[in-house]
Formats: sequence, structure tokens, C-alpha cells
Amino acid sequence: MGRRSIDVEALCAGNRTALARAITLIESSRPQDRQVARELLTGLPERTALRIGLSGTPGVGKSTFIEAFGLMLVAAGHRVAVLAVDPSSARSGGSILGDKTRMEQLSRAPEAFIRPSPSQSALGGVARRTREAIRLCEAAGHDIVLVETVGVGQSETMVADMTDLFVLLLAPGGGDELQGVKRGIMEIADLILVNKADGDLRATAVRTVADYAGALRLLRKRPHDPEGWPRAMPVSALDNSGLEEAWQAMQDLADWRRETGILAETRRKQAVQWMEREIEQGLRTRLNADSQVRALLSDLRVSVANGDIPAEAAADMALDRFLSAPVVPQTPDAP
Amino acid sequence: MGRRSIDVEALCAGNRTALARAITLIESSRPQDRQVARELLTGLPERTALRIGLSGTPGVGKSTFIEAFGLMLVAAGHRVAVLAVDPSSARSGGSILGDKTRMEQLSRAPEAFIRPSPSQSALGGVARRTREAIRLCEAAGHDIVLVETVGVGQSETMVADMTDLFVLLLAPGGGDELQGVKRGIMEIADLILVNKADGDLRATAVRTVADYAGALRLLRKRPHDPEGWPRAMPVSALDNSGLEEAWQAMQDLADWRRETGILAETRRKQAVQWMEREIEQGLRTRLNADSQVRALLSDLRVSVANGDIPAEAAADMALDRFLSAPVVPQTPDAP
Repeated sequence: MGRRSIDVEALCAGNRTALARAITLIESSRPQDRQVARELLTGLPERTALRIGLSGTPGVGKSTFIEAFGLMLVAAGHRVAVLAVDPSSARSGGSILGDKTRMEQLSRAPEAFIRPSPSQSALGGVARRTREAIRLCEAAGHDIVLVETVGVGQSETMVADMTDLFVLLLAPGGGDELQGVKRGIMEIADLILVNKADGDLRATAVRTVADYAGALRLLRKRPHDPEGWPRAMPVSALDNSGLEEAWQAMQDLADWRRETGILAETRRKQAVQWMEREIEQGLRTRLNADSQVRALLSDLRVSVANGDIPAEAAADMALDRFLSAPVVPQTPDAP
Repeated sequence: MGRRSIDVEALCAGNRTALARAITLIESSRPQDRQVARELLTGLPERTALRIGLSGTPGVGKSTFIEAFGLMLVAAGHRVAVLAVDPSSARSGGSILGDKTRMEQLSRAPEAFIRPSPSQSALGGVARRTREAIRLCEAAGHDIVLVETVGVGQSETMVADMTDLFVLLLAPGGGDELQGVKRGIMEIADLILVNKADGDLRATAVRTVADYAGALRLLRKRPHDPEGWPRAMPVSALDNSGLEEAWQAMQDLADWRRETGILAETRRKQAVQWMEREIEQGLRTRLNADSQVRALLSDLRVSVANGDIPAEAAADMALDRFLSAPVVPQTPDAP
């Protein structure tokens, strides 16, 4: 009865309502919905998009950039999907992309599909949903999927682990600005775009590009980057300058990765890594679903907090209970 | 036969050889050793130390600082244990503290105990070993346990999750220096010590202290810090200046946290959190120990990499096999 029926045909024909409903289904954590979602995902046609991860701290003009960049892609004949990943949205209330009016024109374009971040607090849940949503967008015929995230916790790594390219959007600014960027992001960014390279800020933006280009040369030595990558470039979402160049750069890198087989190999690795994560997540989910274990755990938490039982011993007790659980129900309590 | 016997009495009497052997035991991942380790840890007397986390990137003079700071504590009648956490040591070969000669005097002091980082590559393994080693050092009568780490990956968070105070050691330096410090560390550091505040660098060090004091005020607003904390101070391991003041500051904060009950509450939370991590780790370990699941997984990895099975479905298959495993052995393969 809770089963939502998804029109797979309409979805694959590019119907945005069908796509939106399918994503709502995969966002559900109800067991019966998960089952339907699994079936849906297993039966999808093999279509694939260029998956682009995009990160930027608040204030760099991310929405404005996505609007301008997305409209340019749409004008060039592409079908763009934008998915947002914001593990903090449940906490802060202010979800990125929650307000579609921030990308008013793009959201009205029939070739574009924009989906705000789901209000789930656990990164694992958001990750699963996003990975599945990418597949749905691809099945719906979107050939470019932008996965947008904010610089919170491990969300960037997560997004990088499900995309082909990773773009970091920055605001113009000198030394102090460098400080705000987590070192780890420098290691995963393929392309740094310094936004707001217009008007009074143009000179600062160009200088910032030079700073980051220098920093990238220092920080990065990856065998899998072609000559001249990672790269830093100025863009302006206000006067549209640099957008074509940025897109050309992304295509160049994607082509290089396709031709060298690195893109395919990365996707293979990402899929296996994802399976491993799903196993870890699934183990914990199933353990938590066991009411006997849950009851034991709530006692153990008190004992461990009080120092009555070492944490390791308590963990073993919970594991023993969980893993013997399937056999237990039939027999009465043995001494 | 592989069972190592630990002289618990000698350990508790402060015998360093017994302590070293006990740590070697808990570092072993062999099942029979783990069992003995569990028993050993459960039977330890309830003694506790002030647990201090200490982090610093290479080049800040961490070894020299620990040597000088440790000798000062020993001279004041304390028994100090130093444990190193370096998840990268297995990779790089050059383990921190691997060369005890870097702390020659401290390692010779009978009141001190120094233990290099174990050569395990998984952070989880290093974490478990370190947490258990802290308990062993406490049982051996050490009233101050320093847990040293390098600024690699999540090792700082891990160390902060098992200590009462967190100290960050820095070298003198201006704006560029700020850049090298991961933002997350600023959020966990209670005390920033700028080392090498001697000779020509003294003025720079004092300026750096002011810079960081300012940064801390900007970055940090924790309800659980007393007035004036987190704090930044200059020290010199070369001429021993500032060491007494730093120790006084650490004691002040520890006293405040003890009196307000925050220290005890933090330890309660750390213990429960640790149990949860051990459960997650243990689930995976037990799954990997199941030969049927391992065989299935090696097939699934290929299928998932080739795109024949979605990662989520593969994960479910592995979980189903694992969780039904206890019942399977008795029955022959049913159709």
C-alpha cells in the first residue's frame, strides 16, 4: 500500500515529474520503498553522463555560477541535472538549493533538472541517495550531472568518490582566503574556478588564480593528471566570462581520462568502494534493526559510560548477541 | 602456544619491561592474543592519568619539546608515558618516535615510558591499540599520558577522542604558516604552543602567538571552554622557557574540567563512542573472517566493477550470506 508506482517509461523519456518521483522514492528509508527502489535501479537502461562534482564555501556565488553554467550547457544542447549534497541541511534548516528561486531561469528550462539536498542528517544516507539519483538522472537522459556540495565535513570526498571530475569554486582573495580551504580539497580538485572575476574584483581574481595555480603545483603531484593539470581559472557568473573556457577545460580533462581508460577504471573502483561502504552501513543498519540487540545496547551504553564494562568487551557482547540472533528465537533461554 | 604471559603484578608495580610486553600483546591482531588482551584489560586496577593529546606537523620540534616537557614533569615527581600515533608510519617507514635517541634523556629516565607508533596502516587498528595502551600505562602508575600524533588524516580527531586535553605545537611563522594548519584542528585544540620562541625566532614566535590567539577567538565559540580558553602561548624546548607556564595552563584547564564535571562527562561519552566504533569495526572483521562471504565478495567485486550488479544489490547479497551463515553449515545446499 505504501508502494509508490514509478513510470519507468516516462522517466526514461525524460519526464521530469517521473524523475522527481523516482528520486523521492529512493530517498525513502522505508523497507518496502527500498525494495521497490532496488528493483527500479536494477532495471534501468545503461546510459551514462559526465558526472561533475562541484564544491564551494558559502558566499562564493555557487548558485549564480550553476545557473549561468547550466544555462550555457543547455543552450549548447545538453541536458543538465543538478543534485545538491548538504549533510548539514537537516541541522541548519537552510538547505542549499532548497530555494529554487536562486536558480530561477535554469529551473524553468525543460532540459534542466534541479533537486535540492534531502533533509537527512547522516552522510551515509545522503551519499546513497545521491549515488542512486545520479543513476536515475542518467536514465532520464541527462548527459551532464552536476553534484553540488558545501565544504562541510567529508561531503567533498564523498562527492569526489561518485564523480568523474571535481571542480572547486572560490571567491577572489589573497593569503587569508587560502586559509579557508581545507587541504584535503586541494588534493581532490581537478579544476579551481575563481568566481566574481568581474568589475572591481577582476584583478584580485586573476591574482587569486595565480596564487592557487602555484599552490596546486606545490601540493599536487598525481601520476594520473595530464600535463598542466590540476588547473586554476577565473570565471564570472555575472558577465558569463570564462564559462566557455571552463567547460572546454572540463571536456579536455574528461576526454583525456576517457582515452587513457582512467575514467572507466575510476568508475570501476568507485563502484567497488561503494559496495564496501554499503556493506559497512548495512551491517550497522541490520544490527540496529534487531530489537534484542537494541535493548542490550541501551544497557551496555550505561555500563560503558560508568566504566563498569570496557568498551571493547561491550562491543563484543553486542556482536555476539547480534550474530547469534537468527538461531536464538526458537529456543527458550538456556542457562 | 602463541600465548604470551604478562606479569600483571610487575606491570602494576611500574615495571617498564612488563608494560612494554603488555603493549606488544595488545598490538597483536592474532585472535588468541586478542583474547588474552581482553582478559588483561578487564582485570586492570582502576587508576587514571591526565591524558594529553599533542599534535604538530613535522619540523615544529615535537620530539625536542616532548623531551624537555617530559623531563620537567619527571623532575616535578610525575611519571610520564608517551605514546605515538602515526597512521602513516607503515607507509613512510619513518615512524615518529621510532628513533628513541631523539628523546635520549627522557627515554633513560626510569619514571618515563616511551612507545613508538605501531606499524599498522589502518587507523582503526592504531586507535584501538592506543586506547588500550593508555589504560595499560595508567595501570602501570603513569599519572600523565602524552599521546603524540602528526597532522595526518583523521589521526588528530582520533587522539582528541581519547584524551582530556588537546595541545597543538606550532613553529613560529606568519600568515603562510596559518595555511598549513587544518581548520579542524583549530576546533579541537585547547592550547596552542608556539615552539622555538628563542634567539632570533623569539619575536616571530610572540607575533605568531598573537596571530593564533586572534584566530582562536574568531574560530572558536564553545560553551564548554572557561573564560580565556582556548589559549596560545610561546615555549622554547631549547632554553626551557614557557614550559612551566604551559604545564600550569594545562593543569588549570584540567582542574576546571574536573570541577565542572566536564572531564568525567567527556570520558563517559568517549567510552560509549568507542564502543560504537568497536561494534562497527568488529562487524566488518567478523564478516571478513567468514570464508564463504569472502569467496562471494571476491566474485561480487568483479561483477560490480564490470557494472553487472549494482553496488547496493551486491552489498545486500554479501550481507544476506553473512547473516544467514550461522544456520547454513548444518544443511546441505538447498535448491
